[in-house]
Order: sequence, then structure tokens, then C-alpha cells
Amino acid sequence: MVSSSDWLHHQAQVNGDHTALVTPEGRWTFRELDADVARLAGILSRFGVKRHERVAYRLPGNADHVRLVHAITRLGAVLVPLNTRLSPRELGPILENADPALILADTDDRFAWPERAHARVLSMTSLRQFSTGDPIADRLLNFDDLHALVYTSGTTGIPKGVELTLGAQWWSAVGFALNAGLLPQDVWLHMMPLFHVGGLTILFRSVIHGSAIVLEPRFDAARARRLMDEEAVTLMSVVPTMVHRLLELPDPAPPTLRLALLGGAPAAPVLIQAAHRRGYPVVPTYGMTETCSQIVTLNRDEVALRTSTSGHPNLPTRIRIVHDGRDAEPGCPGEIWVQGPTVARGYWRNPEATQAAFRDGWLRTGDVGSMDRDGYLTVTDRLKDLIIRGGENISPTEVEAEILRVPGIQDCAVFGVESAEWGQEVGSALVAEDGFNPENLPGLLSKRLASYKIPSIYYRVGEIPRNASGKILRTELQRQARTLTKWVELS
Amino acid sequence: MVSSSDWLHHQAQVNGDHTALVTPEGRWTFRELDADVARLAGILSRFGVKRHERVAYRLPGNADHVRLVHAITRLGAVLVPLNTRLSPRELGPILENADPALILADTDDRFAWPERAHARVLSMTSLRQFSTGDPIADRLLNFDDLHALVYTSGTTGIPKGVELTLGAQWWSAVGFALNAGLLPQDVWLHMMPLFHVGGLTILFRSVIHGSAIVLEPRFDAARARRLMDEEAVTLMSVVPTMVHRLLELPDPAPPTLRLALLGGAPAAPVLIQAAHRRGYPVVPTYGMTETCSQIVTLNRDEVALRTSTSGHPNLPTRIRIVHDGRDAEPGCPGEIWVQGPTVARGYWRNPEATQAAFRDGWLRTGDVGSMDRDGYLTVTDRLKDLIIRGGENISPTEVEAEILRVPGIQDCAVFGVESAEWGQEVGSALVAEDGFNPENLPGLLSKRLASYKIPSIYYRVGEIPRNASGKILRTELQRQARTLTKWVELS
Repeated sequence: MVSSSDWLHHQAQVNGDHTALVTPEGRWTFRELDADVARLAGILSRFGVKRHERVAYRLPGNADHVRLVHAITRLGAVLVPLNTRLSPRELGPILENADPALILADTDDRFAWPERAHARVLSMTSLRQFSTGDPIADRLLNFDDLHALVYTSGTTGIPKGVELTLGAQWWSAVGFALNAGLLPQDVWLHMMPLFHVGGLTILFRSVIHGSAIVLEPRFDAARARRLMDEEAVTLMSVVPTMVHRLLELPDPAPPTLRLALLGGAPAAPVLIQAAHRRGYPVVPTYGMTETCSQIVTLNRDEVALRTSTSGHPNLPTRIRIVHDGRDAEPGCPGEIWVQGPTVARGYWRNPEATQAAFRDGWLRTGDVGSMDRDGYLTVTDRLKDLIIRGGENISPTEVEAEILRVPGIQDCAVFGVESAEWGQEVGSALVAEDGFNPENLPGLLSKRLASYKIPSIYYRVGEIPRNASGKILRTELQRQARTLTKWVELS
Repeated sequence: MVSSSDWLHHQAQVNGDHTALVTPEGRWTFRELDADVARLAGILSRFGVKRHERVAYRLPGNADHVRLVHAITRLGAVLVPLNTRLSPRELGPILENADPALILADTDDRFAWPERAHARVLSMTSLRQFSTGDPIADRLLNFDDLHALVYTSGTTGIPKGVELTLGAQWWSAVGFALNAGLLPQDVWLHMMPLFHVGGLTILFRSVIHGSAIVLEPRFDAARARRLMDEEAVTLMSVVPTMVHRLLELPDPAPPTLRLALLGGAPAAPVLIQAAHRRGYPVVPTYGMTETCSQIVTLNRDEVALRTSTSGHPNLPTRIRIVHDGRDAEPGCPGEIWVQGPTVARGYWRNPEATQAAFRDGWLRTGDVGSMDRDGYLTVTDRLKDLIIRGGENISPTEVEAEILRVPGIQDCAVFGVESAEWGQEVGSALVAEDGFNPENLPGLLSKRLASYKIPSIYYRVGEIPRNASGKILRTELQRQARTLTKWVELS
């Protein structure tokens, strides 16, 4: 069993004067952040927070949020980040399942907490009034300890609490470093939600690598571009929408930026290529909550040749492509299975879901992909998003990539529409320029797609609904489509 | 239990065209090295080499050596590197203890192998004649597997086989990267013996990090300096003697060199400072065979202020300073204890030695040091090298550091000399310029050292005897001293 000194405290000792965190509220070195966290851990400890206990929090992406995450970690307690976009009705089952000892809320929180949770909700301000606890400077971290329950935005049913150990965060940070390198001057621009795994892991990469974070409560393209210059940003995580917005700015990417990790959803190669033309070193990645974020990354210098792949698994993560219970041949599609020390140990208090997803140490992702002879993974689809039309499997992202190549199309989503004749028909929601004529679309697509893949129903929408990670909410689209007027329908 | 794809094979897939190895014999990319190793692993497999079996080898530092190390690793077998400086008489007990299934020797080997070993000795040339085996491209590596028996150059008794797992190599490489950073263009200049742990770990850092190695069979300062320019070297490991030789060259260090890790022996601060004045970014480190090489490193930018310390432990390694069975106060000396995933699991087939050195998961190093309030480790001495004069403990390295400051002194060693009156007297061997007058030395030292620490007996020698890691052979000096004429003896 591996254990470690507290990572933040280690950085305070080794890189004490280096910048750890920059937010609109201020700047902190590792030594300063460590001292703040020591005090906060002392206060939490006075509130009875102990090792293995769950602490939920619903906070914006600010310095308090970062301090709290490290303070909970230092105490060996379990993080339960709450999605700030969820309604009280949606949070109820999550709190029921997580059963936290304490819930921390923002200072000016007016959230209508579910009845049963209310008694345990404390604001960060009221917490700070209890400032007389002894600071806790360092504690032993046990890699096998449960460290976070991150609830997945499942499209159906009650969200599942993904059980991530402390070791998962360590191995995720190490896997990234071995793949992408580690520069002493690395600075992360962090504009992702901190309550999703992709945003959370960046906090731990910072304290494991000794890199700085420039944290903003939300994404704003112009501000992002200005911060890249002001803070000499080298790294960032992006979802496709963020890349679209950055490409609308007049300035190209700054030379300091060495990697923009594209996650959240399979991305269209055209988008990645467009980003590279403007100097944005966008690389496709693959990962999910259950793998503690990114586990597969394409090398920056291979993007031109391998844009449609996600690259190789980060060491020591391994991947299998399983079709009909057997390993698929190179290049042939199947379900993506993952094994490695970043993989979750299961779903919290949900043995059925755990048993369904984890088998012999392997996580069955439910995603579809293939691996070529050289070990490059191509993720073709979320298994549950596959459209099955008359027995033919259709990948929405493949069709979306082709639609996005058409001039005048700004964004799109492809999804299944119930059909008496085919089981499912292929539907597409389009964000298009004024004057765009959808009648020409099927003809243009027919040069690149088999006829059965070409959408037969088109809807015009103002925006494609996505979750905070940038994943298209196809179930939501399917629901909306029932009430939308069809723009074009092929006979 | 963590497992992984073969590290070299991973690099062949991810960085296939990058340089992996440069020797006087040629250059190899990761793809080429991987293909060679696949063939060699296939041949070894035909010879019956299996997982957990020990394979000993006595080879110079060349490409064959590197290939063999990776081929044995790929098969899950156990490396037994043999020190090429040992006589047949000295190798006998090591082979007896390791009991290898096979012994590999250099092509033109004229070594008089011990009688019992002879039947199992094969030359690399004869091995290559069996070239019809199927190549072995990839195998699962299990981090918990025993991976190497590295015999320590103990000064007394039979050498002990330090049991290093595969995971120890992984964690050693990761600990280095997290401390020193990881640049895509990293190139190691490797002029250390490959049969010692410090040389061996560099081979695995290369395949875990994707960095190149420029390997030379022996250290030559002028050639080292030329290769630094030709191959844009960024990293090297050095022992004090190598630094001395490099500083004798007319040229300063090249700007590409970002770290020279100084190990093998506690180094005099004056040497480190002199190196920095010539542009050599020498940083003190601390480690040993039992910790799979370096576990503590001083940051380059702290060398000026903290020269006499070795810095902080690499994550997640932890250190305690134990005095009289309790943790010593900050700044107070005690025995250095180490815990972490690079620590050896014991000594091969030597339960007594294992029990004496390992306690509750901690390695008792036998070295003496202190840790200050900010977590900086200062290694003062090898426990067994301590001089005890009339009940006073005297650190040889402390005295050596002061003697080295005296103009005209080129090298020195301090050691205990038997004394009826004091138990031990302090003796010193000096390498000095012609015309140096040793009579003045005690007076000069008295300004800086307590009188009981000042050597009372001086010997003039042409060279200080050191082992391949640069450690002063004090026992050897004590033996020599009995027959040397004293240069000066204080009354």
C-alpha cells in the first residue's frame, strides 16, 4: 500500500515561492495556499470531519473551492462535489446516496436545499468564523483510501457515485506528465467546472506537479485569450464549444500554449485541424469519470496525421476492444474496456451498477472504438448513443463530422428519431447561418456517407444542448425534437 | 496490483522515431531498439528463460547490455547484473546466492568463471546464433514482480542481493520526473557503470519517460564534454571524481545541460559551488541500492543557499530521522529511515540481513543525517564510517569538506585509525600539490573545526581509493594506512 506526505504541503516545502493559484480574487503561492488549507483543515477537524467521512460541497469555481478540496483531502475525508447546475429535486437522490457528514455552501448561497440536507448545510463564511482550530500542516495520504464520489450525469435513472481513490488522482497526474512532459513553468488555464472530474483532476495535477492554476469561475473566450498572455499559460483543458469560441477571436493562440486537451466528447477532425491552423495545439483525449479523467491522448506532433484517433493509452493504463466477448481484431470495432490504477473501484452503494460495469478488474465503458495495429485508439461512439436504423449501426459523431464540413453550418448534433419503418431514423439538429439552404445538405453528404447514414429529418435550433463537459445531450434533443417543427424531411 | 504494457514497446508505439540509444557502435530509435529486444527476448525464451527466473550477466556498457536488460525485463525474469571489476573469487558467492538459470558474457570474454558457474555461461555471440525464435513484442509487466537482484559492494562479508521490484524502477523514474521535470528533448549522457543501481535506473527512465541515452562504456571527461555538444545532452549522473575532471577542461558546461545529479557519496559544497561557477548544474542527491537509486534531490535553484543539504524526498518517498528509537527533533542528527515504493523488499535469501535492515515497512539505511523544519535532509555520514574518538562522534565528510577548502589540497579522505589512547584517532589521506606544507594544516583547520575533529595523522597518497559509485573506500584506506609512512603526526 502506497502512502505519501500531503501533496500540497510537499509543494509548499519544495516550491514554496512558486505561484499555486490565480483567481479574480487574488494570487497565492504554494506556501500561502498550504497555510490557508492548514487552517481550514483545522476548522473542519473541529467540526468532526474525519478520515473516510464524506463532505459534500456546492461552490462556484473560486479560491474557497480549491482550499476546501485540499483541506478535505488532507483530512483523509471524501470529496462529494455537487453540480451547481442541478436543481434541488435532482440533488436530493445524490445527497441521499452520498449521505455526507457535512455540506458546504457558498457564502451568499440562496439555494433551496432539499429538506433532509438542510440541517447539515454550512456556508464557507460561517465555517471561517470558527477560526480557533489548530492548523493541520501535513497528514499521511493513503493511496488506497476512497477520496471522491463524483456523480455522473447519467441520462436516465439516479446518478451514480463514481468511487475514485486518492491513488486514482496520483496516477492520473503521473500518466498525464509522462505523456505530455512536465515543464517547471507550466501554468494551467482552468475554466472548466470544478465539480466534474476533468476540472477536479487539474487541482491535483497542480499539487503533484508543482504547476500553477489560473482559475476562472466560467469560460469566456476573450478573457481566456487575455489571461493566456498575462499569465503565460502553457496548458488548458477544453471542450469543443470552447475551441469554437476561441477560433472566433481575432488573435491566434499565444506561443506559450503547449497543449489544449480536448475532452468531454469525440471531436470532429475539422475542428481540431482548424484549431491547429490558428496555433491552438488541441489534442484529442479520451477518458471519463470512471477513469479519473483522461487516459488516452494523442501526441501533439501526430495530430496532422492521426486527427481522427485519440492516440495511445497513458502508461500504465491498458485498453481492450471487446466484441462478442472476445478481443476484436486490430481496426475492428468493439466495446472499449479499460484497466489501470486510475479506474474507479465501483459505484457507491450501488452493487448492481458496479457489477454491470466492472468485470475481472476491467471497466466496461459502454463506448465503442477500435485500435489499430500501432495501438492508436479511435473512439467512435458512446454505446448508448448509437443509432440503429434497420439493423445498421450508425455513429452520430461520424455523421456530425461530415455535416460540420459543410459551409454555413456552425454546429450540429445527430440523434435517433423513433420510426415505425426503420426502428430509428437519423435526425439532425442544425445551427446554421442565415440563408443556409438545408435542401442541399443530403446531396452534399451523399458524396461522403452511405445513404443509410444521411439524416432524413433536420431541425433548425439556436444552440445544441450540451452538458458541462461539452457532451451533446442527445436524450434531451430527442425529447425536444418531438415538439420542434421539422426544417426539412426527406421523403 | 498494478500492471503495465512493456515500457519499451510503449515508447516504440508512442515515440517510435525518437532516438532511444546512441553508443560508439551506432544509433537506435525506440522502434529499432524495441525490434531488437523482441528478437532477443524470443531467443532467451527458447533458452527456457521464464518469469521469475534469474539471469546474470557480465557485460561492458554497450548496446548488447541495454538490449539484454530490456529483453530479460520483457520476459518477467530477474536481472542479476555482475560487477565487471570483481574477481572470480569475489563473484563466486554472488552466483552461489543468486543461483541464476543462465549467465550471459561478453562476446570476447576471457573471464575465468568460477568452476560451478561455467556450464551456464553463454556469450552474446553464441546467443545470437539462435536467431530463429519468434520475436516477443509485448508482455504484461507486473509491478509487484521481483525484477532485479543488485549486489551491494559491502565492505565486509558476502555481498547482499538487494531485491528490487519492477515497481521500484517505475516509482524511481516517476519520482525523478516529478522533481526534475520532463522535457520532450531530454537526453541522458550515461557514463556510469550499468551494473550499479544508478546506471541501471537510467535505462528504465529512458523507456518510461521516452528520453534518449548517450551511452559510453566508461567516463572520459573530454569525450563527455564533446558529446554534450554533439548530442545536446540535458541530463547526466555524476560522482564527485567526474565533476573534478570536467572542471579541469577549458570549456564551461553547455547551455543544454539542465541537471547533473551528483550521487554516490556526500559531496563537498565547495565542489558543487565550483561546478556551478562553470555552468555545471550539479545538484546533490541521496539514495542507495536499497532505494533504487536517488530518492532525495535538491532543486537546482536552491543549490546556492542549501548546498550542504540533499533537498527533499521525491514524492511519495518519506524519511524519518531516528535517534534512540524516537523521531529526532528538527535539525538533530539520527539514523535515516526510508519508506516508499522504491524501497527494496529485502535481501535475497538472507533473512537475517533483511530483518536487520527493514522494520515495519521502513528501511534503516545505516546513514546519519538530520532534517530541518523546512524538510531539507542533510546527510552527514554513513553510520559505519563514523569515527568515534574518546566518545565523540566525528563525521569524516565534515572534516573532508574543511580540508578541501585549503589551497593546494586536491583531494582527501578522512578515516579512523586505531588508537590505544582514544579508541580511534582521526587520520587523513591527502592528494596535494607539490610543495604543499602539511605542517600548516592543523592550524588552518582549527579556525573551523573543534580540536577533537582535526586529524592528528596525515598520509600523502597519489589517489583516494573509491568504488565505482565514487564512495571513498575507507576500510581500504585503513588497511593501506598500516603500511604507509606518515607525512605528519601531531604529538
